[in-house]
Amino acid sequence: MDIPALLTSAGMNIGISVGMFSLYSILRKQPLNVKVYFGQRIAQGRTRNENLCFERFVPSASWILKAWEATEEDIFACGGIDAVVFLRIIVFSIRIFAIATIVCTSFVLPLNYFGEGMEGVEDSTAMDLLTIGNVREGSRWLWAHCLSLYVVSASACTLLYYEYENIAGMRMEQVQRFPTKPSHFTVVVRGVPWSSVESYSESVGKFFSNYYASSYLSHQIVYRFGAVQQIMEDAEKMYKVMTTVPVMAAAPVDQCCDTSVDHRCGLCGTGSNSVKMIGAGSELARRNVDDELREKECEAALVFFRSRFDALLVSQTIQSADPMLWVTELAPEPLDVFWQNLCVPYNLLWIRKISVFIASVVFSVLFLLPTTFVQGLTKIQYLQNAFPILRRVSDRSYINLITGYLPSLVLTVFLTIVPPLMMLFSTLEGRVSRSTRKRSACVKVLIFMFWNVYFSNILSGSWIERMGKLTVTSPKDLATLLAELIPRQASFFMTYVMTSGWSGLSFELLQPVPLLGNWLFKCVLMREDDFIRPVTFAFHTEVTRVLLFGLLGFTFCILAPLILPFLLIYFCFAFLVYRNQIMNVYFVKYQTDGSYWTLAHNATIFSLILTQVVAGILFGMKKSSSASTATIPLIVCTALFNVFCKNRFLPLFRNRAAQDAIDMDRHDERLGKLQEIVENLPKAYNQFELCGDEMQVTTKQEEDAHSDKPKKSTSSESLEDLEIVNPENLITGDLPSPSASSSQLEHEDKIVSIN
Amino acid sequence: MDIPALLTSAGMNIGISVGMFSLYSILRKQPLNVKVYFGQRIAQGRTRNENLCFERFVPSASWILKAWEATEEDIFACGGIDAVVFLRIIVFSIRIFAIATIVCTSFVLPLNYFGEGMEGVEDSTAMDLLTIGNVREGSRWLWAHCLSLYVVSASACTLLYYEYENIAGMRMEQVQRFPTKPSHFTVVVRGVPWSSVESYSESVGKFFSNYYASSYLSHQIVYRFGAVQQIMEDAEKMYKVMTTVPVMAAAPVDQCCDTSVDHRCGLCGTGSNSVKMIGAGSELARRNVDDELREKECEAALVFFRSRFDALLVSQTIQSADPMLWVTELAPEPLDVFWQNLCVPYNLLWIRKISVFIASVVFSVLFLLPTTFVQGLTKIQYLQNAFPILRRVSDRSYINLITGYLPSLVLTVFLTIVPPLMMLFSTLEGRVSRSTRKRSACVKVLIFMFWNVYFSNILSGSWIERMGKLTVTSPKDLATLLAELIPRQASFFMTYVMTSGWSGLSFELLQPVPLLGNWLFKCVLMREDDFIRPVTFAFHTEVTRVLLFGLLGFTFCILAPLILPFLLIYFCFAFLVYRNQIMNVYFVKYQTDGSYWTLAHNATIFSLILTQVVAGILFGMKKSSSASTATIPLIVCTALFNVFCKNRFLPLFRNRAAQDAIDMDRHDERLGKLQEIVENLPKAYNQFELCGDEMQVTTKQEEDAHSDKPKKSTSSESLEDLEIVNPENLITGDLPSPSASSSQLEHEDKIVSIN
Repeated sequence: MDIPALLTSAGMNIGISVGMFSLYSILRKQPLNVKVYFGQRIAQGRTRNENLCFERFVPSASWILKAWEATEEDIFACGGIDAVVFLRIIVFSIRIFAIATIVCTSFVLPLNYFGEGMEGVEDSTAMDLLTIGNVREGSRWLWAHCLSLYVVSASACTLLYYEYENIAGMRMEQVQRFPTKPSHFTVVVRGVPWSSVESYSESVGKFFSNYYASSYLSHQIVYRFGAVQQIMEDAEKMYKVMTTVPVMAAAPVDQCCDTSVDHRCGLCGTGSNSVKMIGAGSELARRNVDDELREKECEAALVFFRSRFDALLVSQTIQSADPMLWVTELAPEPLDVFWQNLCVPYNLLWIRKISVFIASVVFSVLFLLPTTFVQGLTKIQYLQNAFPILRRVSDRSYINLITGYLPSLVLTVFLTIVPPLMMLFSTLEGRVSRSTRKRSACVKVLIFMFWNVYFSNILSGSWIERMGKLTVTSPKDLATLLAELIPRQASFFMTYVMTSGWSGLSFELLQPVPLLGNWLFKCVLMREDDFIRPVTFAFHTEVTRVLLFGLLGFTFCILAPLILPFLLIYFCFAFLVYRNQIMNVYFVKYQTDGSYWTLAHNATIFSLILTQVVAGILFGMKKSSSASTATIPLIVCTALFNVFCKNRFLPLFRNRAAQDAIDMDRHDERLGKLQEIVENLPKAYNQFELCGDEMQVTTKQEEDAHSDKPKKSTSSESLEDLEIVNPENLITGDLPSPSASSSQLEHEDKIVSIN
Repeated sequence: MDIPALLTSAGMNIGISVGMFSLYSILRKQPLNVKVYFGQRIAQGRTRNENLCFERFVPSASWILKAWEATEEDIFACGGIDAVVFLRIIVFSIRIFAIATIVCTSFVLPLNYFGEGMEGVEDSTAMDLLTIGNVREGSRWLWAHCLSLYVVSASACTLLYYEYENIAGMRMEQVQRFPTKPSHFTVVVRGVPWSSVESYSESVGKFFSNYYASSYLSHQIVYRFGAVQQIMEDAEKMYKVMTTVPVMAAAPVDQCCDTSVDHRCGLCGTGSNSVKMIGAGSELARRNVDDELREKECEAALVFFRSRFDALLVSQTIQSADPMLWVTELAPEPLDVFWQNLCVPYNLLWIRKISVFIASVVFSVLFLLPTTFVQGLTKIQYLQNAFPILRRVSDRSYINLITGYLPSLVLTVFLTIVPPLMMLFSTLEGRVSRSTRKRSACVKVLIFMFWNVYFSNILSGSWIERMGKLTVTSPKDLATLLAELIPRQASFFMTYVMTSGWSGLSFELLQPVPLLGNWLFKCVLMREDDFIRPVTFAFHTEVTRVLLFGLLGFTFCILAPLILPFLLIYFCFAFLVYRNQIMNVYFVKYQTDGSYWTLAHNATIFSLILTQVVAGILFGMKKSSSASTATIPLIVCTALFNVFCKNRFLPLFRNRAAQDAIDMDRHDERLGKLQEIVENLPKAYNQFELCGDEMQVTTKQEEDAHSDKPKKSTSSESLEDLEIVNPENLITGDLPSPSASSSQLEHEDKIVSIN
């Protein structure tokens, strides 16, 4: 690819972006689209005044101003800690690439251009002249490259350290900030041993009241996902039985099981005792229901403790001599629980994990096909020899379009299937919370992107260029191959930054699929109900994209610095666009408490070390052994820095500190709040309410599917992510509001606020 | 190397072994050598009747009979669980290689010999005809090789599973068997934060009595290693002050600090309150001593809890928000504590670990020199072209000696420096217990041996054979190189088995260095004191050796099966010799509770997978693609089996189960024993007694060093391992007997039994 092709691509992408940005600024002012562009605001109850005036049809930059002016506190209030961390990743990228752009375009780029290393080479394009490939062998200017590498690495490590410290602090504050989270008091137990004598629920009750008598409060067995609907129907039947039989005057056997919560029996409180309050007359019916319930139990339970410290201790201890039994971990937040996977038997988990691993590897290998095809488009002039039919495409502008814009577009389209697939893999892996599932998907997508977008593009591109002439003649060649190939792919990745980055941002902003779906629903089909439901932010796609661009930036910064301005523009716009989207569109259902940062840290360290290794080899190839040797201490220092950060900060992202838990317990006890929190625990984790909501949504989704409407493009969000929840509760970490079925008066005001 | 050279080596080694075995059977009957050969029995108080009769000078096999007849219980009583596990590793090796010998010598060996693949090759020796190299390309007999590989792999996995299960059970029993171990109640705290206001001891006391008020009993600060002697002298001064000042009638402030234990003040009980019982008159002296003590404190402490469960919970919890502060782990047994390393600041540990890692890598690389030299000896005929001086060595018998016996002897000699060095590395790493230090050294030695003995011998051997002609022409070649080279090195490794294995065993049996040292001491220098002190078993050397031979056995079993009978003989003798040595020579000071098995398991899985990969590549090279493909499911299954075992058993080797701890606590409480155990805790971990003993031994060692006596060859045992302890207490897990300084009457009988 040469300069005109790059310009074609830049022109097209700038055009698309500017057009879409303007379109967005008009569309967002239309009342019809409020639900598309302000899903979160509506969920939070904030409305806008809508006057039909001329301003509504004029493009404006007001949204950019609003996004820019928002403080970190605003972001935190709207998007929670994960959104803040995501924006901090972008800010980190802006900072480091601003430094890199200044250093590399002012020192490295001119040296490359006047390097005269490619004077004799025939097929060199103008783009190649700007890469390190144009520096002569043995040139003493390579020292400037080496120095730039030092500056970039040192700045990156310094910035990483402060960000890590900052985010670790934020994560610690998070616990203090939302002291009433029910997850602090709750432990998930899996691998409850099967017993022919007693039900799972009885086993759990017996085990914990035996070993943790002083701290154990109650538990709640998990029911099979499909079975929940069934049980609710049964409970209704049961209710009828109860209303026909006179209720005994005797007090409820179990205090925790509130008699007023009539059709929730068996699900809160100490489980198995649930239906005991029913009169003796209905003994037979009770037994039937009991047996039915028992059959639907999974070997997993949520166990509630009297204090945070007790729950923490139990979650970190191995309970049984058989490590596959009584496996404990801290529970996710109620809305974060992924009930389906809680039912997966614990001893099958490792098989699932291995299967998913194998499937991911196979998928990565198969994905080499589209990558090679994409690279074939870029290097179309090389393919003309092999496929004479391509020679007919002689028109210069067509060639520019094909080599400049099409390849990265095709790659972007192919890549849209990756996040949903990885999300599916993470679901199959058996994660018990939505947040860890999304984070695990993020890791998978990240590895996939680094391998399939970065390395395989570089390798397959070179394979096509040489068309079989690619022979590695010694193992040393294998190492130098990468160093030789990376600079040659710079132009492709520049177009990729524009297509996937710039245009991707404008698509993100415009949300075309919900927009069109909404119009169809409202204007064509004239339906009353909404096409759009608020969705959670797709961290696994967006974090990955930002980190991939980070990898591109680092590895190309001294090899082909022309990519840096393009990246910097991307990051700046990303900062504004994502701020706008987080504040207006997405709602928060669950949080990972900032654990995406560890991913970003690892990816950045990997990018840095790869850059340094590649640079070291390249310096060696250019016969500058002193510059090559000088990179070795840099690599060692970066690795040491990583180990230091791992020791210093990583444990904070893995565990909670006992000290904090005890201090919080004491504080709450002093204020007399502990008892209240603890009493509300079983209600918080009511599988029937939580799953009931999901099932209603699922049923609705099925209806939608039958009506052949287009769905939201972010299909990676599985169906149960689409339900409507009051986001305020989520951010503030309060107990989720009980559904209308709860008859308790103290919650009625909240219920009103929802309905 | 050809058959005569192999026979020379076999003859020499058999001669040496038989001679030494006979010599041993005579020497062990001499009263002079009792301390050399029956160190453990003497320590246990079991004596032998010694009559001067003719029998004493006749070689006999009675020791073999005794070793054979000993039950597992006997071994357990003498050597503890680690010895039992070590012998089970040998039994596993005997079983699997008996199967492999039967299968491979009856099917694979004849097929190799009649394979006719080397008919045209000039420089093939008779040995090469017995390897897979002699099978023709495309031969359908390769299916027999593949089938043998399946049989061996399946048997190995089955045996591994049952052994793992068995040993995991043994480890569980171990906890039940010795319920009074003080380590169950004790937690090591490191990284106590520095405070200008209070001493470390006060900080620890305040922290734990604040957060663990109900379970915290007392603590004991760790003093700097060199400072302990100093403090003891100070304490004596203090004692004098005390005796001159009238002691106040007031009761001791802290009950735990027993007034009768006068010169231990400040070291048991709640530390900082230690000297408070001294009258007001000595206030000034008290302050001075207090200040001095404070200066000598480390940022580490042993904290005692009221029950096993409490200690377990604390050890598994992260205490503070800063992960480098208040780091807790379960304490090692009193005699297992490595006091020196407890004083290493916790936040320096990661730097030490990295430095040790780098040092190990550098050492491994440097060790390529002796390996290449050794391989040069084996392939002396190839070197004659490069170094004409070698041509003078034309005598056939010399050549046989040089190529057959010398190389493995030289390698064995070079390798003797590896275990002590790795032990030093593990010490520098900062392990806080002797047992984990030894296990960590074992891992290092194992990796070193696998890399430096196995791979580098194979690679350097081939490099010499080709003398620069070794050029890898494609990356595929790199993979196939190993497969091609391994069979060619079979003959060298056969001689290695004989030299390092057979002769090594007879040296182990004869213990030449202590034997000669003892003679010099007793007969030449006429000294009264003993040259020998009982030593602990060098697991890090011996486990590694057995596993290395396992690696050789697996990788050569279908490539060059002639090695198998040699190995089988080694394992059978090893079984007898080690049983004898464990029962008679070595004593037990600390145990890892069988955690060497996890190492053996991993090494065996590694060996199996390497074997399968190499075989798969070799089948491919021999143009038998179906046999080559058939190895792929085998590799996958072995890997899956490993993951399964990791999930099923490994957690048992990492943590203790809460259930067991609670059950034991309750049992002891019911019997009223808990209080008694708990009261003795601070006495058990008395740094002054434990270190005092060490220092006495050290002083004595220094005296020995001045008298220029030869030291024990197992120099890997650092000095403090050589002290005399009553092993019975160790095996039974009782509290260690207090030294004579303790004035408590109930222990006096024990003291008598030592002195």
